[in-house]
Amino acid sequence: MNDFDLVLPAAVDVREVGMRDGLQLEDPLPLADKLAMLEAIVATGVRRVEVTSFVSPKAVPALADADQVAAELHRFPGVHFSALVANPRGAVRAVDAGVPHLEYVVSAADSHSRANAGRGTAEALAAVGEIAALAHGAGGSLEVVVATAWDCPFDGRTPLTRTVDVARAAVTGGADALCLGDTIGTTTPGRVVRLLDAVRRACPGTPVGVHFHDTRGTGQANALAAVQAGVTQLDASVGGLGGCPFAPGASGNIATEELVWWLADAEVDTGIELAAVLAAAAVTERAVGHPLPSSLYRAGGAPVPRGPVRPS
Amino acid sequence: MNDFDLVLPAAVDVREVGMRDGLQLEDPLPLADKLAMLEAIVATGVRRVEVTSFVSPKAVPALADADQVAAELHRFPGVHFSALVANPRGAVRAVDAGVPHLEYVVSAADSHSRANAGRGTAEALAAVGEIAALAHGAGGSLEVVVATAWDCPFDGRTPLTRTVDVARAAVTGGADALCLGDTIGTTTPGRVVRLLDAVRRACPGTPVGVHFHDTRGTGQANALAAVQAGVTQLDASVGGLGGCPFAPGASGNIATEELVWWLADAEVDTGIELAAVLAAAAVTERAVGHPLPSSLYRAGGAPVPRGPVRPS
Repeated sequence: MNDFDLVLPAAVDVREVGMRDGLQLEDPLPLADKLAMLEAIVATGVRRVEVTSFVSPKAVPALADADQVAAELHRFPGVHFSALVANPRGAVRAVDAGVPHLEYVVSAADSHSRANAGRGTAEALAAVGEIAALAHGAGGSLEVVVATAWDCPFDGRTPLTRTVDVARAAVTGGADALCLGDTIGTTTPGRVVRLLDAVRRACPGTPVGVHFHDTRGTGQANALAAVQAGVTQLDASVGGLGGCPFAPGASGNIATEELVWWLADAEVDTGIELAAVLAAAAVTERAVGHPLPSSLYRAGGAPVPRGPVRPS
Repeated sequence: MNDFDLVLPAAVDVREVGMRDGLQLEDPLPLADKLAMLEAIVATGVRRVEVTSFVSPKAVPALADADQVAAELHRFPGVHFSALVANPRGAVRAVDAGVPHLEYVVSAADSHSRANAGRGTAEALAAVGEIAALAHGAGGSLEVVVATAWDCPFDGRTPLTRTVDVARAAVTGGADALCLGDTIGTTTPGRVVRLLDAVRRACPGTPVGVHFHDTRGTGQANALAAVQAGVTQLDASVGGLGGCPFAPGASGNIATEELVWWLADAEVDTGIELAAVLAAAAVTERAVGHPLPSSLYRAGGAPVPRGPVRPS
C-alpha cells in the first residue's frame, strides 16, 4: 500500500488567455462579439484576464482592435487585465491605452525568437528593462513569458540551463513575475517539475506561472504536476480556444473548464464557476464559428451526464 | 519555493485494451485486419493485452470473432493475453478457447449494472466465485473490473463506500486483482487518489489497477495521480481508440502513446516503444476507417516537430 495524497495549494489563480492566445490565430472578430465573449468570461468569476496583444496589426490581424478593447475595460471593475507586448513600442501603446500590466514574450530558443520576434533571445532580453520601466512608470507590472521554455519547433529541446538563464536575466532586467510557456505543447509532468525547480532556485522570490497547450494530451497532467509543485498562476482558455482538433501543431491552451473542474474536485479554490465557463465557451464558439477543442465542453460539459451504456 | 518532486514507480505495466474496449463499439472488422492490429500492438513491446470479450455476439457484434482471435494467440508468445467476460458462460467459452486470464466486469452502480449486464450489482457479484473457479481451474486468473467506480450515467456519483464494498466482495469471492473503471470518463485526480486509498485499505495485498477514459480532458492527469499513488497497472488503447471526438459520451480510453510518452520523460519504464505505438495507431486507424482521438497521434506523433510559429 502506498499512502499517497495529493498535496495542493488551497487556491489557484487562473489567468484567462482566450481573448489573446485563443483569438490570435482566428479570423478577426467584430468588436461586439469580442466584448460579448469578454463579458461571458468576466461572468465566470475569473480574476485575471489577458485581454489582447499590442502588437503589429499586420502580424496579428485578429488583435488589431487592441485599443478599442482596452477602451471598454472600465466596464469590468475588479478584474486584473493584462496585455501581451512584443517590444517597447507595444508597451507604450498598452500603457497609453490604460493597460499597464504587461506580458512580454522572450523565447528561450534563438530560432523561435527570430521567427516570432525578428531577433534573437539576447536582443529580446535586452528590452526587458525598458518595458519594465514603462509598466512600472504607469503603475503596472511586467511578467516575462519565457516561450519555448521546454521545446522549440526549430531547435528541438531547449537546454534547461538556457531557459533558466533567460528567466534569471528577465528578473535582473526588471520582470516582476515569470511565466514558463510550453509554446508547442510538448512538455510532460516530469519535465515541468524539473524546470520549475531550476527556475525557482535561480529566481528566488519571483512568482513563476505556467502556460500550457494541450497539444499532446498531457496539458492537464502538466497542470497537475505544476500545481503540486506549488504553482498558483496558470494560464487557460475557455473551450481550449486557440486551436483546431484537425490542424496538427495548432492546438489550443489547456481548457479553463477542464482545469477548474478537476481543481474543484480536489478542493482547490479558483473563484471560477464551471457552468459559467461552459456558457462562455458557448459564446466563444458562436463567435469564432467552429468547434472548440475542449473535451469537457464537447462531451456536453456535464460532469455526470446520462449517456450511452458501455461495459467498462 | 516548494521543493516538490514527482515520486513515481520505476516501472508501469500498461495493458493494451484497444482490441477490446477500443473495438467493441466499432463496426466489426475482418479477422485479418484485427490480426494486423494485434501484430502491430505486440510489436510495441507491451506485455499485457486484453484481446477480446467472450460476450454475446448480438450485444457486441464487433467481438463476435473472439474464438477465431483466440486461436491465433499462439503466434505471440511472451505476451500476457486476457479477455473480458460478462458471466460464467463467457468464462467457460474463454477458458475453452485457451484464454484463462479473465476480466469480469461488475458495475458498482446498480442502474449501470442492470443496463449493461441485465442484473443488479449484488447478482453480478454473486457470480465472481464461479468465474474465479473457472479461471483458476484452467491455470488462469481473475481480475474484477469495478465499472462505474466513480460515476454512473444513470445514478450519478457512485458513493465511495459502495465501490469499496463491491471491491471487497469481489476479492472475498475469489478475484486475484481489481481494476477501477472510470466508465464514463468523469473522474479527476483528487477523486482517483481518494478511491484508490479506500479500496487498498479494504483489500490489502490485492493489486489494484485503473481504467480511464479521456472523455473530459483529465485522462492523463488521472493516470499521473494514480501512478503517483503507486499504481503500476494501467489500461490504455492505441490512438485512444474507443471513441470519436464528435460523439459526446463515447470517448476512448486514455491513449497508450500519450501515457507512454510522459512516463518515458519521467523515467518510468513501460517496455513500450513510442514509435511502435504510433505505428500501431496508424494500422488501427486504417482498419477502423476514421480518425482516432489521441491528441499526440493527431499532432503528428513527434514530440518535438517543426511546426507553425506562435508567440507563446
